Amino acid sequence: MTEEILRVQTSAHSAAPIAVEVTRGGMVESFHRVIAAVTDASGSLRHAWGDADRLVYGRSAIKPIQAIALVESGAAEAFGLADKHVSLACASHSGETMHTETVRDWLGQLGLGNDDLECGNQMPGHEPTAHAMIRQGESPCRIHNNCSGKHSGFLTTAMHLGEPTKGYIGADHPVQKRLMRLCQEMGGEDLSHTPRGIDGCGIPVFGMSLKAMAVAMARMADPAELPATRRDAILRIRKAVAAEPLMIAGTGRFGSLVLQQLGERILLKTGAEGVYTAALPELGLGIALKVDDGNHRASTVALGWILTRLGVLRKADQEALANQLVAPIANWVGYGCGVVRPAPDLAL
Amino acid sequence: MTEEILRVQTSAHSAAPIAVEVTRGGMVESFHRVIAAVTDASGSLRHAWGDADRLVYGRSAIKPIQAIALVESGAAEAFGLADKHVSLACASHSGETMHTETVRDWLGQLGLGNDDLECGNQMPGHEPTAHAMIRQGESPCRIHNNCSGKHSGFLTTAMHLGEPTKGYIGADHPVQKRLMRLCQEMGGEDLSHTPRGIDGCGIPVFGMSLKAMAVAMARMADPAELPATRRDAILRIRKAVAAEPLMIAGTGRFGSLVLQQLGERILLKTGAEGVYTAALPELGLGIALKVDDGNHRASTVALGWILTRLGVLRKADQEALANQLVAPIANWVGYGCGVVRPAPDLAL
Repeated sequence: MTEEILRVQTSAHSAAPIAVEVTRGGMVESFHRVIAAVTDASGSLRHAWGDADRLVYGRSAIKPIQAIALVESGAAEAFGLADKHVSLACASHSGETMHTETVRDWLGQLGLGNDDLECGNQMPGHEPTAHAMIRQGESPCRIHNNCSGKHSGFLTTAMHLGEPTKGYIGADHPVQKRLMRLCQEMGGEDLSHTPRGIDGCGIPVFGMSLKAMAVAMARMADPAELPATRRDAILRIRKAVAAEPLMIAGTGRFGSLVLQQLGERILLKTGAEGVYTAALPELGLGIALKVDDGNHRASTVALGWILTRLGVLRKADQEALANQLVAPIANWVGYGCGVVRPAPDLAL
Repeated sequence: MTEEILRVQTSAHSAAPIAVEVTRGGMVESFHRVIAAVTDASGSLRHAWGDADRLVYGRSAIKPIQAIALVESGAAEAFGLADKHVSLACASHSGETMHTETVRDWLGQLGLGNDDLECGNQMPGHEPTAHAMIRQGESPCRIHNNCSGKHSGFLTTAMHLGEPTKGYIGADHPVQKRLMRLCQEMGGEDLSHTPRGIDGCGIPVFGMSLKAMAVAMARMADPAELPATRRDAILRIRKAVAAEPLMIAGTGRFGSLVLQQLGERILLKTGAEGVYTAALPELGLGIALKVDDGNHRASTVALGWILTRLGVLRKADQEALANQLVAPIANWVGYGCGVVRPAPDLAL
């Protein structure tokens, strides 16, 4: 292969810290390096692990930013979308019946259906749902795809603005150009020449610095300086996700559990390959983090630690989320063999 | 928590190199650091990535070493075990029918059954098998556990030596003490004071330096200096695994594919949390590697690169295993979005 590809250059001083350790008995068995950026809405970097300028793909962690288009375009209102729809537009859902039924109804309301989604078929992540489907001999369809809510949002916006619905995942389609522009405006960095790729659900991904991603989330936390339409859209999204915490992820999942505990005090979103973002309205801060190796188990524990460190998780919250902040590892007979925990010497 | 626990101290110079990169479009999205040791049977370190003295848990990657007890005790012969049983004793199998039927028959031959296994229930890793079970409403039992062959080997040895079969997973049971002694003898390092833990299947795990694990595998590759009984046991194990390559892993899996391609030119074994070992009889070398973050996708690609670099994988082998050496990443519609590949500047 001779193709040019952007690689991560980590000198000793720019290497990400070991933020998460996986213990087993008397030893740390594995560990995860994490880069993180915490910024305010003005673009100031308040805290960082490793190189905050590293380009990363936001993957699904930027869905709440992308959902702005659905609301500020007027599409959400025109089609009478409820909180559950807006939350689903931000979601990597588990494919539970509550998710798929809502997406199905939503598409029906648009006069569209499963075949208009361009995200590919995916078996639900929610095991009982997946098992029930297997028992019934039911194959997963596009509506089951964890991104089907986001795609329904794309279709809604396209219809509202009179754009073609077919081919909406293409990089040159107005929907995708609008999303890229949104991320550029919200993050405050030129994205026209950053690396490109294709996401699991088929839409384009683009490299964005970790810091820019945190700034975009900080502006979702503190949209005071943004144009009124965008500010209102962001407030609507924050409110919708907090009101429908199960729609953005699913039963028992970190993101939903944190939202159920904190409500409107947070907006947070996971992404593939160990990305996590959060907006903290009370503090006016945004967080973006990426696990070097892409492991999800480290992204939740690292984010939990940062939320604790920033005082967002108060004592009662820490107790309610204890199994998420330090996640137990059990063996096949249920014996607790170890934990996934923040590194004891972690600092921010 | 105030408990003492051994942690990994990585100064800049002891950090493991980035051995494996995960690309997506025009960028490296994630990457994995790997420590590796290549030694000969005399204990000399021939090649290394990172700190070869780091203590790691061998997990399932030391099963071929543990299987020595089954053969050199005379148990395998006394119970008339075939190659498939010996290969299964080394296995982390996928729970396919060929695996579970063989384990069931083997236990029956011992006058034992599913309930005598102490490994816990586990759904087969082989998806079509798991789906068929779900469709039929069948719950996984202990025989489905990926370690059931190893456990059957433990039971066989215990019965042959007149030891109790109940409680054979306990650290104080003769079976486990024998396994620890074996690893100590084969690796040439005192294990009496290294950290301890419990494995997924309930047996004790013990910290062992990566180098000692490689030395143990080098002695499996080149057992000339070992006592005759042990040498014969090792040759039997190597032959059995090569003759039954699907028994040690399963359909489509890296270990089985490499064995199907190389036959008796290699003995290799995966372990949880990114461990891999290999014995190379032609070169008289042993390999042990551990992915810092525990990800399996990096362990196979890293091992494939080392095998290529050492000349074990010849041109035809590299072609046959191309999708394993550089593993494609497809999205939900089957589009190739990136690859898991060795880092281009990797050296050994």
